[in-house]
Amino acid sequence: MTRRPDDELLVYGRNACLAIAEGRPDDLIKAWVLESEVKRYGPLLKACAARRRAYHVVAAEELEAVSGSRHHEGVVLLVRPWRPRFSEWLPQLGDGNCCVLALDRVQNPHNLGAILRTAAHFGVPGVVVEEGDVRLTAAAYRTAEGGAEVVPVLEVPALPKALQALKKAGFEVVATSGRADHQLWTGPLPGRVVFLLGSEGEGLAPSLYKLADQTIAIPGTGAVESLNVSAATAVLCGSHFSRFRIHSRPF
Amino acid sequence: MTRRPDDELLVYGRNACLAIAEGRPDDLIKAWVLESEVKRYGPLLKACAARRRAYHVVAAEELEAVSGSRHHEGVVLLVRPWRPRFSEWLPQLGDGNCCVLALDRVQNPHNLGAILRTAAHFGVPGVVVEEGDVRLTAAAYRTAEGGAEVVPVLEVPALPKALQALKKAGFEVVATSGRADHQLWTGPLPGRVVFLLGSEGEGLAPSLYKLADQTIAIPGTGAVESLNVSAATAVLCGSHFSRFRIHSRPF
Repeated sequence: MTRRPDDELLVYGRNACLAIAEGRPDDLIKAWVLESEVKRYGPLLKACAARRRAYHVVAAEELEAVSGSRHHEGVVLLVRPWRPRFSEWLPQLGDGNCCVLALDRVQNPHNLGAILRTAAHFGVPGVVVEEGDVRLTAAAYRTAEGGAEVVPVLEVPALPKALQALKKAGFEVVATSGRADHQLWTGPLPGRVVFLLGSEGEGLAPSLYKLADQTIAIPGTGAVESLNVSAATAVLCGSHFSRFRIHSRPF
Repeated sequence: MTRRPDDELLVYGRNACLAIAEGRPDDLIKAWVLESEVKRYGPLLKACAARRRAYHVVAAEELEAVSGSRHHEGVVLLVRPWRPRFSEWLPQLGDGNCCVLALDRVQNPHNLGAILRTAAHFGVPGVVVEEGDVRLTAAAYRTAEGGAEVVPVLEVPALPKALQALKKAGFEVVATSGRADHQLWTGPLPGRVVFLLGSEGEGLAPSLYKLADQTIAIPGTGAVESLNVSAATAVLCGSHFSRFRIHSRPF
């Protein structure tokens, strides 16, 4: 697969592509659809035709070549990426309870995709990452199953500075750690929170750890060192959703 | 990578391999370790030597060829697989609160690996799957980060029959579904439960759905159709752990 310029993004997978065609059809550049799936993707092809964007009805081998994957689910798009700016996004968060994610050196695009899907499910308004850490690749888009169209990935030059800005906007930064101040489910949880999650191998950078207002552990048996970062995200975002969107209790 | 006979399993990844060398060193058949990592894997090599099992100190290319992956983390093992029988495992579960997983047509080995890691973290004593659905591949083992050595995968000829046996042993079968009887966090949750999770694309087979004693939904915004199966597992197992191992309350 050739490297695309930064203003073009290749996306594949049914839910990911349908979410773009529905949500921001003007960003479509080109589409490829499997011969046998033309009916299923009719509205998407119509959206292309109405905007005079090229689309190709192709055989499986060509779709595999274009996407570089066997997991295309019959559709590949070339689109303009959605890259909101952190400085424009932050003021839109209001001042109430809100759960934001910040990822330090999470490099696996499948993990990013799974995290975006979870974030979309639980109403997380954005995922902050440092430029160069992790890219929204086609694989991440597909794994997100449309979540990448709902939850923006905010790429910032430096994560510490972004965390400081979030703190100024009333967020408390909570880092996950085995040696933690509190245990999830029995300790307090801020309603306006940034969950700061580190890379699997190396954990959080000490410079980021220092910025955390508190640390939290997800209790368990200790049989494995920790949860996978996307599993930890699901547990944390689910707990926040349960406490503040369903039960309205900080404990 | 050549297909191995059924009584041999290739495993790679640091935590997965160390868990085997520590937990059941007699099942080691052969080991390959990266030249530069010999010190780190000293105890593992000693375990091989003590049992007169061959081990090879090799260059990166050879390790990649043996493992069929770039994610070997410096170590590859050939081991005898751990395949407990469902009929022998079931009577060992006691009669108290207990959370078991049953997976219907979950075919992605990375999902199985992530589920095993989560299961190990939250003390789930086993994951039941139908023969032929999903294999504990080397990739699944590595993703489980040692969890596959703690949580057995019980392969059964027919999932409905296994669920009936679990029901006879006092388990309630809870299926996840968008159109559900209850919502997680506000509805009841059985203390002795089998969480029945379906494949991503197709959901649960109707024949299995019929066997569920209740259905449960994980509340969310509705922005994506559902959570990924391994994210859903993390939320469900975490909720069960919180209710029955920490708070001891069915609601």
